[in-house]
Amino acid sequence: MRINSERYLADLTELRGFGAVSTGVVRPAFSEPDVAAREWLAGKFADIGLTPHFDPAGNLFGLPDGDAPCLMIGSHTDSQPEGGWLDGAFGVIAALEVARAAAEAGGPRLAVVSFQDEEGRFGPLAGSSAWTGARSLADSDRLTDASGLTFGEARRSMAHLCSGEFLPVSRFTGFVEPHIEQGPYLEESGEKVGVVDRIVGARLRKIRFIGQQNHAGTTPMRTRRDAFQGVVAFAERLNAALTPLAQPATVWTIGRVEVKPNAPSIVPGVAEISVQWRDVEAERLDAMGEAINAAAQGVSEERGLGLEIEERGVIAPRAMDARVVEALERAAQKVAPGAWRRMPSGAMHDAGAVAAALPAAMIFAPSIGGISHDFAEDSKLEDLVIGAETLAAVAEELG
Amino acid sequence: MRINSERYLADLTELRGFGAVSTGVVRPAFSEPDVAAREWLAGKFADIGLTPHFDPAGNLFGLPDGDAPCLMIGSHTDSQPEGGWLDGAFGVIAALEVARAAAEAGGPRLAVVSFQDEEGRFGPLAGSSAWTGARSLADSDRLTDASGLTFGEARRSMAHLCSGEFLPVSRFTGFVEPHIEQGPYLEESGEKVGVVDRIVGARLRKIRFIGQQNHAGTTPMRTRRDAFQGVVAFAERLNAALTPLAQPATVWTIGRVEVKPNAPSIVPGVAEISVQWRDVEAERLDAMGEAINAAAQGVSEERGLGLEIEERGVIAPRAMDARVVEALERAAQKVAPGAWRRMPSGAMHDAGAVAAALPAAMIFAPSIGGISHDFAEDSKLEDLVIGAETLAAVAEELG
Repeated sequence: MRINSERYLADLTELRGFGAVSTGVVRPAFSEPDVAAREWLAGKFADIGLTPHFDPAGNLFGLPDGDAPCLMIGSHTDSQPEGGWLDGAFGVIAALEVARAAAEAGGPRLAVVSFQDEEGRFGPLAGSSAWTGARSLADSDRLTDASGLTFGEARRSMAHLCSGEFLPVSRFTGFVEPHIEQGPYLEESGEKVGVVDRIVGARLRKIRFIGQQNHAGTTPMRTRRDAFQGVVAFAERLNAALTPLAQPATVWTIGRVEVKPNAPSIVPGVAEISVQWRDVEAERLDAMGEAINAAAQGVSEERGLGLEIEERGVIAPRAMDARVVEALERAAQKVAPGAWRRMPSGAMHDAGAVAAALPAAMIFAPSIGGISHDFAEDSKLEDLVIGAETLAAVAEELG
Repeated sequence: MRINSERYLADLTELRGFGAVSTGVVRPAFSEPDVAAREWLAGKFADIGLTPHFDPAGNLFGLPDGDAPCLMIGSHTDSQPEGGWLDGAFGVIAALEVARAAAEAGGPRLAVVSFQDEEGRFGPLAGSSAWTGARSLADSDRLTDASGLTFGEARRSMAHLCSGEFLPVSRFTGFVEPHIEQGPYLEESGEKVGVVDRIVGARLRKIRFIGQQNHAGTTPMRTRRDAFQGVVAFAERLNAALTPLAQPATVWTIGRVEVKPNAPSIVPGVAEISVQWRDVEAERLDAMGEAINAAAQGVSEERGLGLEIEERGVIAPRAMDARVVEALERAAQKVAPGAWRRMPSGAMHDAGAVAAALPAAMIFAPSIGGISHDFAEDSKLEDLVIGAETLAAVAEELG
């Protein structure tokens, strides 16, 4: 089969128009532009002879004729609250183009997917986890977004499109997900393709320090119990504790910070933060979790601050399927000889959820400057074409 | 004259009902409960023969009959977004009771005031500064609150009550403001009255660190430019730099923190904080300001973060009038022999603005636990009575 890069990049540009803001997209799961993009994609599926199927979680499949199990390819089309134009979109449109090229070439039969809420508006990998059954639909429906809206309420916005049934995983022989790397490694090495052999695990806690809200003019430094100063001390202590535990790809992030009452003239009474950490080894994730709690406990005791710690999510590290990874290595070597590497994914992806049910692996394309989850996210168009060609090559072998 | 403590505490309790939330009040300047409280107070003025006068900034005066200049007493009735029940209210109701007792005793003639927006919803000491002319009404009208509403728009909510004219300061011979201490010093020493001889100056800056928003899973620690980690490093550096410059009453506060995009899975791209610092010496305020900028600059350079610093307010330290302070010392010694002290005010107060135009000083009553700007703010009722008696005694001497 031969992919048509003009047609492929034109589709990618068209998808970019749904929820376009600045150079990025604002297309969170179940938002108006997200649903519109899914309806557009369903039309594209129909154009190439794939039957669109929306499942109860809002995942969209394009299914080839016939009952025999086939390879599934794709990613997701929802975005972060302020997302880049390629995160998810690259994988879905590369898959659309490969399925179209396969149809033109008379085979192989391929299914294309765009999972819903990969970005975790309601919960990480919400759509793919509901599909595999890792999280039941009833449990999914109780997930809430930052505004308190539930997944159950949100999916009503797509109810008119959706079937009442999930497709059985046995309809598919495996899953290959192309995605932008979202990190700096491929660009730094000049390589064109990443063959992802494992996906990091991620854990998330909410940590709340409770001090005494007070007047910022009359409360002496010596008597303050300043909740935000507790966060500062915690962050310093955390960096010192985690650095010796870390491998090069180990990361930890304080991404969300809320101070109350958040006024210049008031000593903060409450400060709440998110702490997220990721690694490919479950043991290291455990050790980091203990160090995080110890740091928070130490600050709480030293400063007389109340402490509340809430577990907000655990995603286990996930190995990709060895047979699919090996097929991807052959495909990468064919398309970009000597210019590819095996690598872990530092981000969670739908392939991690799907791997619990089907043989799965991923293809990475380089990201410019390693920037993602930002309007500035971008890749060289030629690299996006190489990624699609690698997908076509592996589909020919596995399809 | 003799104050009636039952009647006085009943009025204080009645005022507490306007905007009551939990044990505190939510009565910010120009809010519905603030305007309702001012209308109630105007009725109380009329009951004791004082003519209510709302000026264009929303300040409410109760004026005795006759043209001869008289002593002005009072404070403010607006509150912090989450305020205590006594901050401002104690001074206004103590003044109401003393004016009522004076009217019953046949003199002296006293005016009572409740200034508007002492708490700085729009700007620090907004009402009293507009009255003295330190900030013109045109400049005041351009001040904005956190939501972007202007002072000019807000004061329209009181336009039906307000005169078009400011009262000339020459109508008054001086100003005495009773207030709760809002700090721990009087309670720690067991003293009942503070005679405030100077008010600290305060300065406020907004500091913004600009990094690179990025994916919290795929961006290695070594390549991150995390704006919130810049705030952490700045806060540590600031504490180290300011501690050696500080006197016991010197304070600095990071009270407001905003992180963008504020999501657990995204390395913060922008982090913005308020830094406020206070001291009685202008030279120390200058030195602290230089240390603050040096700390921010150092973090910016070390971490490759963009830096924006915005001056948000300068209030000079203000000495109280020596003659009024001496009269207050005699009054305190009469009411609470040996149980009072001269002290600075660590908070800004309307007396600081008024002191630019009239001889002024303040009386402090003890705060339980030194807590203020919090619903938990409280004082012993007997201490609030002693404060009112001290105001009565000084009004007899100066009135």
